[in-house]
Amino acid sequence: MPKYSETLDRLIAEFERLPGIGARTAERLAFHVLRSAAEEAMGLARAIRDVKARIRPCAECFNIAEGGGPCAVCADAGRDRGLVCVVEQPKDLLALERTGRYRGLYHVLLGRLAPLEGAGPERLTVDALVERVRRGGVREVILATNPDLEGDGTALFVAERLRGLPATVTRIAKGIPSGSSIEYASDAILSDALEGRRSVPPE
Amino acid sequence: MPKYSETLDRLIAEFERLPGIGARTAERLAFHVLRSAAEEAMGLARAIRDVKARIRPCAECFNIAEGGGPCAVCADAGRDRGLVCVVEQPKDLLALERTGRYRGLYHVLLGRLAPLEGAGPERLTVDALVERVRRGGVREVILATNPDLEGDGTALFVAERLRGLPATVTRIAKGIPSGSSIEYASDAILSDALEGRRSVPPE
Repeated sequence: MPKYSETLDRLIAEFERLPGIGARTAERLAFHVLRSAAEEAMGLARAIRDVKARIRPCAECFNIAEGGGPCAVCADAGRDRGLVCVVEQPKDLLALERTGRYRGLYHVLLGRLAPLEGAGPERLTVDALVERVRRGGVREVILATNPDLEGDGTALFVAERLRGLPATVTRIAKGIPSGSSIEYASDAILSDALEGRRSVPPE
Repeated sequence: MPKYSETLDRLIAEFERLPGIGARTAERLAFHVLRSAAEEAMGLARAIRDVKARIRPCAECFNIAEGGGPCAVCADAGRDRGLVCVVEQPKDLLALERTGRYRGLYHVLLGRLAPLEGAGPERLTVDALVERVRRGGVREVILATNPDLEGDGTALFVAERLRGLPATVTRIAKGIPSGSSIEYASDAILSDALEGRRSVPPE
């Protein structure tokens, strides 16, 4: 016996499968779809279909790309192709792009090592990164995985895999975030800030 | 210049149009769709399409119904067709059905009067209710709109429209909710409870 009707129940169940969407929210969304104009609802259905049909990882760096071609960064002839910044996810790439301060290329790992969750290196794109550096032309690999336990572990793992290859490997700086206050910074942050101290003026 | 890619940006925008879904949640959902198995994502797209294609209001009571037929309640030959319970939304109907204590039919208004939001009677299914009662066979109309300002106003409006027709019009009881405590009940609840007091034992 369906709750509302077989079709509406199925839509509620599909919404519930999305992360962070509980039973009540799923019901609310399904009723919204039911009430909304057909064009609006079909816009969502089409967008889902198109994402699955068109978006593929960039063959070079595994960033999001459309229609099987290279991503927007790799396709940009003005980028410094000797610099490769390694990030966990496309979202991290976007955050770095927003700064406008980086003009090199990227390599998206599509994840991180998380041994406690059973996430090993086999799902990451590290082999492709090693191959990319081995092909030559990359002078520096910047490890920009997240500054936490798993991100640090992933950075160490990638650095280990790149050892012996003709590229410098660096890690983004950890320290006290700009705009915060020392008084309220955690021990871990202050330890990083002390450890990473630099000469003033710069050498 | 797209943020992630034209297609992914469009999916994020479509998710953001859903009620209660902000920019960050929309992005999270879109990335989930991007990463999930094609079958799972297409299940959601299909469910949205099917809801828009198959679900229509019941021609008799405006409850949710599939494929143009009557809803499950109206189609049930075992229901008391002389009783019609008026609710705002299909969700309210479902809540009443869950009690298992009501064996009559329903009439779903598909909304409520909310003058402050510009929601007048023209969007409600009151005309169809009046016509239904006028056709005969309905001995009682139970007004089960929500026990708040708009719900009370809507109930008054419906009662006014039904005046002079051959059916008793009743309103569900307001009072102190079972399982609560008098100490913490609001003035409005206690006033309703006093005003609606009944003889013990029942007359």
